[in-house]
Amino acid sequence: MRRTIWLEDDESVCILDQTALPLREECVRLKTLAEIARAIEVMQVRGAPLIGVTAAYGVAVGLREAASPTAANLNTIRRTLVATRPTAVNLRWAVDRVIRRVAEHPTSSWVDIAFKEAHAIAEEDVAASRSIGEHGADLLETLYRNKEARTLRILTHCNAGFLATVTWGTALAPLYVLKERGIPLHVWVDETRPRNQGYLTAWELSQEGISNTVIVDNAGGHFMQRGEVDAVIVGSDRTTRRGDVCNKIGTLLKALAARAYGIPFYVALPSSTFDLSIESGSEIEIEERDPSEVHSLGFSTARNPAFDVTEAHLVTALITERGVFAANEETLVAAFGSTSPSP
Amino acid sequence: MRRTIWLEDDESVCILDQTALPLREECVRLKTLAEIARAIEVMQVRGAPLIGVTAAYGVAVGLREAASPTAANLNTIRRTLVATRPTAVNLRWAVDRVIRRVAEHPTSSWVDIAFKEAHAIAEEDVAASRSIGEHGADLLETLYRNKEARTLRILTHCNAGFLATVTWGTALAPLYVLKERGIPLHVWVDETRPRNQGYLTAWELSQEGISNTVIVDNAGGHFMQRGEVDAVIVGSDRTTRRGDVCNKIGTLLKALAARAYGIPFYVALPSSTFDLSIESGSEIEIEERDPSEVHSLGFSTARNPAFDVTEAHLVTALITERGVFAANEETLVAAFGSTSPSP
Repeated sequence: MRRTIWLEDDESVCILDQTALPLREECVRLKTLAEIARAIEVMQVRGAPLIGVTAAYGVAVGLREAASPTAANLNTIRRTLVATRPTAVNLRWAVDRVIRRVAEHPTSSWVDIAFKEAHAIAEEDVAASRSIGEHGADLLETLYRNKEARTLRILTHCNAGFLATVTWGTALAPLYVLKERGIPLHVWVDETRPRNQGYLTAWELSQEGISNTVIVDNAGGHFMQRGEVDAVIVGSDRTTRRGDVCNKIGTLLKALAARAYGIPFYVALPSSTFDLSIESGSEIEIEERDPSEVHSLGFSTARNPAFDVTEAHLVTALITERGVFAANEETLVAAFGSTSPSP
Repeated sequence: MRRTIWLEDDESVCILDQTALPLREECVRLKTLAEIARAIEVMQVRGAPLIGVTAAYGVAVGLREAASPTAANLNTIRRTLVATRPTAVNLRWAVDRVIRRVAEHPTSSWVDIAFKEAHAIAEEDVAASRSIGEHGADLLETLYRNKEARTLRILTHCNAGFLATVTWGTALAPLYVLKERGIPLHVWVDETRPRNQGYLTAWELSQEGISNTVIVDNAGGHFMQRGEVDAVIVGSDRTTRRGDVCNKIGTLLKALAARAYGIPFYVALPSSTFDLSIESGSEIEIEERDPSEVHSLGFSTARNPAFDVTEAHLVTALITERGVFAANEETLVAAFGSTSPSP
């Protein structure tokens, strides 16, 4: 399975350009903080975990650009990176982790320390994704055995596959593990307007040999109603301490339909996606992207919220690298209270 | 307000080509049954009521093509027209009404009788649409007065405006009447993938001076959750005797969200859209259109159901030309049992 981000010559951050996929596989070298910030903003990299890793490298690259970096540089770098995407909490979490780390050391070693910490975040992301895959596969394999269905039929929204992380993915990681275990799978892929990240999901599933069918975002309710979906699994950009899940716009509609038709609705996320500093999803700033992503008709306007909030009561379980948890405050604070980003 | 279908020189059926809209306003002359069938199939005309009217003219045009028409011609014409779109009941209803009518007369007058009956269906559609508009406006005006909102904010899916009928529309007719009454309105328009009929809705609302904003189909749940939608109103392609509403794919997801957030969900339809011969929406054949409407990526397949079924319990009220009705079998059979198409 491919990696989405890596270093070349120990100096350039290289990424798979996700705005070129799935039509073309192109790599882009990012040599400056401005290039990294832009790559996040225009979604050459996307997916909350990968945004976090990229931004961590952004701190290192930003420090290298400053001849002799100071605390003022750190502030500027942080502001630049945090401004790129307001919703995904992993970005802030990763940037702050690198900044806290370098601040423990003399300025002369900041660049090295920052690159090391960014590497560490990347490697932890790989391990977390694989672990999410194992835990999620256990859950879904039980579902498969209990249903005695010939094929496990999963619906997913947006892309929370290996392209959304360093590798493996979050929501799709369990499917890759199930594939290793020989469980027959079929995946319904929401196209995920306005940016069509479903195409990325279809592309990576097809690359890994998993049967999939793309549907318009309108169609998931119909297939759930007609008994053609066994489970829904999605990723998250931020999950609050009571378990409200902020994820790609349209997730909420699928969660409501899953509830209506008795279908389990799972969210797969690394613990870095929890934001225990807020209780309710209504407190999350929802990024509104350019209306031209929706349409450019002269005679009407558009609104383009990029995310929505699925209330905790609609979430069957949260699948993390540390296991599977119920979406409620008591459980989440007990499990993640000591490691989540501070307010 | 424009008409979508009319006769020229008493012989050509002229239509506004809805595959060219909203970019270009083009009229197309349909001179043969094959042209009429194709116009319905490729959606140059669309919307259940307009499909019905067009098909009615199709019978007349088809009879004119046969030098001296026979019952065999009638059968062929019926088969050709009914095969174009399997879901909308108005098509079968209108075709059968014209055929029943001509069958009462000598074959020499069939062409004239068929054109007259098609005209009658068209004019009844205009009257029904206007009446739906008045009844729906009464309902929505009450909602507006009770909420004391400054603007009534309506969400609609697909196009059930004047373009879906001869003129006025079904779901949008009440909005045009509210506009006449001076009620301030704003309409959230679902783009309605895969065919983007939302663009038609935005275009016709803008033509009539009603403020509107196009959103992706994923976004409606978010706006309902955040309190930015006062009511949802849609059309229907077929509604069963217990009130299950078959309509454009994606309608169900909006109905589930409206229910979750306590927002009224209205369906506007002429009585010709009722199919009292079936009880449950699960009995309706759901048209699957070409997967290439969804995407043409080489590496994955697509499924493209064109409609879904919103269960009666999710429907707040049905707005018809005869008034507003609850979506349940007792009410609907009492009100429409004697006039609906027979099985």
